[in-house]
Amino acid sequence: MSAMPLERDNIHRLAAYVPGEQPTFRETAGTGGVIKLNTNENPIPPSPKVMEAIRTLAPEALRLYPPPDAKWFRAAAAALHSVTPDQIIATNGGDELLRLLVTVFCEPRSAGGGGIGMTRPSYSLYSVLADIQDTPVTTVDREPDFALPQSVAQAWNDAGCQLGFIVNPHAPSGRYEAVDKLREIALAFRGVLVVDEAYVDFAPGNALDLVRGSAALPNVVLLRSLSKGYSLAGLRFGYGIASPALIAAMDKARDSYNTDILAQVAATAALQDQDHARASWDMVCRERGALTEALAQRGYHVYPSHTNFILATPPSGSGRPGARAIYQYLKDQRILIRYFSTPGLDDKIRITLGTPEQNAALLEAIDRYA
Amino acid sequence: MSAMPLERDNIHRLAAYVPGEQPTFRETAGTGGVIKLNTNENPIPPSPKVMEAIRTLAPEALRLYPPPDAKWFRAAAAALHSVTPDQIIATNGGDELLRLLVTVFCEPRSAGGGGIGMTRPSYSLYSVLADIQDTPVTTVDREPDFALPQSVAQAWNDAGCQLGFIVNPHAPSGRYEAVDKLREIALAFRGVLVVDEAYVDFAPGNALDLVRGSAALPNVVLLRSLSKGYSLAGLRFGYGIASPALIAAMDKARDSYNTDILAQVAATAALQDQDHARASWDMVCRERGALTEALAQRGYHVYPSHTNFILATPPSGSGRPGARAIYQYLKDQRILIRYFSTPGLDDKIRITLGTPEQNAALLEAIDRYA
Repeated sequence: MSAMPLERDNIHRLAAYVPGEQPTFRETAGTGGVIKLNTNENPIPPSPKVMEAIRTLAPEALRLYPPPDAKWFRAAAAALHSVTPDQIIATNGGDELLRLLVTVFCEPRSAGGGGIGMTRPSYSLYSVLADIQDTPVTTVDREPDFALPQSVAQAWNDAGCQLGFIVNPHAPSGRYEAVDKLREIALAFRGVLVVDEAYVDFAPGNALDLVRGSAALPNVVLLRSLSKGYSLAGLRFGYGIASPALIAAMDKARDSYNTDILAQVAATAALQDQDHARASWDMVCRERGALTEALAQRGYHVYPSHTNFILATPPSGSGRPGARAIYQYLKDQRILIRYFSTPGLDDKIRITLGTPEQNAALLEAIDRYA
Repeated sequence: MSAMPLERDNIHRLAAYVPGEQPTFRETAGTGGVIKLNTNENPIPPSPKVMEAIRTLAPEALRLYPPPDAKWFRAAAAALHSVTPDQIIATNGGDELLRLLVTVFCEPRSAGGGGIGMTRPSYSLYSVLADIQDTPVTTVDREPDFALPQSVAQAWNDAGCQLGFIVNPHAPSGRYEAVDKLREIALAFRGVLVVDEAYVDFAPGNALDLVRGSAALPNVVLLRSLSKGYSLAGLRFGYGIASPALIAAMDKARDSYNTDILAQVAATAALQDQDHARASWDMVCRERGALTEALAQRGYHVYPSHTNFILATPPSGSGRPGARAIYQYLKDQRILIRYFSTPGLDDKIRITLGTPEQNAALLEAIDRYA
C-alpha cells in the first residue's frame, strides 16, 4: 500500500473552487433566520407555474430515463430567443457548460494547448476548470473602473488561447459592456469567445445578436443561467446558445442524460412564465437604484451595476470600519454579504439585492455599526 | 471565417455515446402505449415518500443554492452502508461519477497516460469517456460464458492502465462475480479499480467489503445508481463509495453544485425507504426466474442473470427468426427490447424485466411470431 496519491498531479495540486457560504433553506426560513445577500440569488421565489410543473409530474416520469436532449426545454428556449433548437444546449447549471467548453476546446498543456483567456477580476471557477484540464490560463487586468481593455483579444491571441471568457454584465463589479465591443473582440480573437450572461436579465441589453441573424459569428457561445433571473439556483439549470456546429461539438462531450426530468419540466415552465420573471427583474432594478443611492449618501463609492448585486467601497478615514470589518459585523448580525480578500477587491463589499425589507434591514445594521 | 472545426481533434473524431431509444413518459402512459423493456428501468414506480419529498419542497429551496456537498444524502448513504460520509460522493447520475473518475485518474495520451482498462463486452460509455479525455483504452475479452478472465489485472498493468472498469453484475450478460475474485484483481492491479454496481440491488451480494472495514483497499471505487434499484432513472442520481482520499480527489474536480436540491431530497427519501425498494427487487427477481424458464421452454439459451434484465439467444434453425428479426418484430408490436449489432452479441436479445403483465405480453408476442 503506497501513500503516493493515485490522482493525477494537476488534480493533486488543485486548489478547488470554494463556493460562497450556503446556509440551507431550513436555516434561512422564517423570522430570526439568516438574511442571505452573499451569492446573488433572486429574492423572489420562482414562478407558481414552476412549482405546479414539479408537483404534478407523474411518478412514471421519474421511473423512466429523461429525454437525453432536453427537447422540450430546448424548443422553449429557441422560441424565446428566436434561434433554432440546434443552437441550444441544456446543462446541469451554467457551471456544466463552462466545464464542457474547456473540455471541448482546450488541449491540455502536454499537447501544446494554449488554454483559456480571462480578465481579472472574474469568476474564479474559470481558472479552476483550466487547472482540472491542465491547460494554461492567460489573464488580462480590467481597467480601474472594471472596463474591458481593448487589448484583450490581442493578449489572448499572443498566448494562443483557445477559449476566452468574458462575463457580461461583469462580476463582481456589475459593469455592462455593449454588444459592439464584444463583437470587436470576437472578430479579433482566434479562439472561441464565451460571453457569460449569467446576470443578463438585470442588464439593459444582451449579446444575442452575436449568435443569430445575418451577422452571427461562428466562434461565440452565450451562457445563460436560470439561477438568478428565474429564481432557480437550487435547480441547477443553464444553457448555451451558439452556432449549430459549436453546439454539436459540445453535445458529443456532455454526459448523455445531463439534465433530469424534474429540472427539464421546471426550467421549461420558468422560461414560459416571462411575466413572473420580469416582475422580479424590475423589483431588483428598483432596489438597486435605491440601495446605490442610500449607500452613496453614507459615503460609499458604489460602482454602477447592471446586475442583481452591487460592489461598493465603504468610506475610508481613521476610526471608520473597513470592508472586512463591515462584512464580519453583518455576519454577526446574521446578514451575509460577500467579501473578497484579493488585491483590488479587499477594500470593497459585494451585496446581493434582496427584498425591500431585507435591504432595509441591511441599511439599518450598517447605520448601527457606523 | 474558416470552416476548420474549433473543437479539439479528439472531440471532432469522437463517436458519441448513443443511448437506447427513450420514448417519454407521455408516450408510454396508459394502454396502447409503448412497453419499454430496453433500457433497464425498474418496472415499479418510485416510493410514495420520494413523491412526497418532491411535492412538499418549499419554493424557497429552489430559489437558493443547494448544499454543494449533498450533505443530507451523503449522511443517509453512509448510514445505509456502514461507512462514513467522507467515503461518499454524490453525482448527477452514475455517468457523472464515471466521467469524474477518468478526469481525475487518467492522464491524457499526450502526457503519457496509460488510460483505462475494460472488459468486452461492456458499457460502451467507458471508452467514449476515454476518447473525450484522449487517453488510451485497453480491452480484455470476457470468457464465452462472460466470466472475468483471471488475466485482466495483468493485461491492464502491462498497458499501464490508470483506471479499470468492471461492471458487476455484468451487463449485458447479467453474470455475477463474487467479491473474492474482485479483491484479487484489485490487489493485483496498480491503478484504481472501479466496480460499477449499477445492478447490484438485484444480485446475491456486493463488493462493499472492498471499501470498508479492516480489509478495505485504497484503490477501489464502488459505483451505485438510483436509476434501477430505486426506480429513479429520470432523476439522475448516483454515488461513489471509496476511501476518503479517493473521494476527496474526485470532490475537487466535480462541478461545485453538481446535484440539485430536488434530486438531493428525492434521492435521500428513496434510500430511506428500503422496504419499497426491496419489494421491487423481489418482484423483479421472481419475474426473472419465470421469464428465464419460459424462454428456455421455447428453446432460448438464457444466460443466468443477477440483474433486472436477461440476455438470451433465440433458437437457431432454418426458417426461425434471428435475434435482429425478433427485436424488429417486437418493436413493430410496440414492445421495445435491446439488440446489439456487435460481434458476440448479434445473435442475442436483451430484455429488461417488466411487470408480470408486461412480461406476459412479451411472451405472447414472441409466441405469435415464432
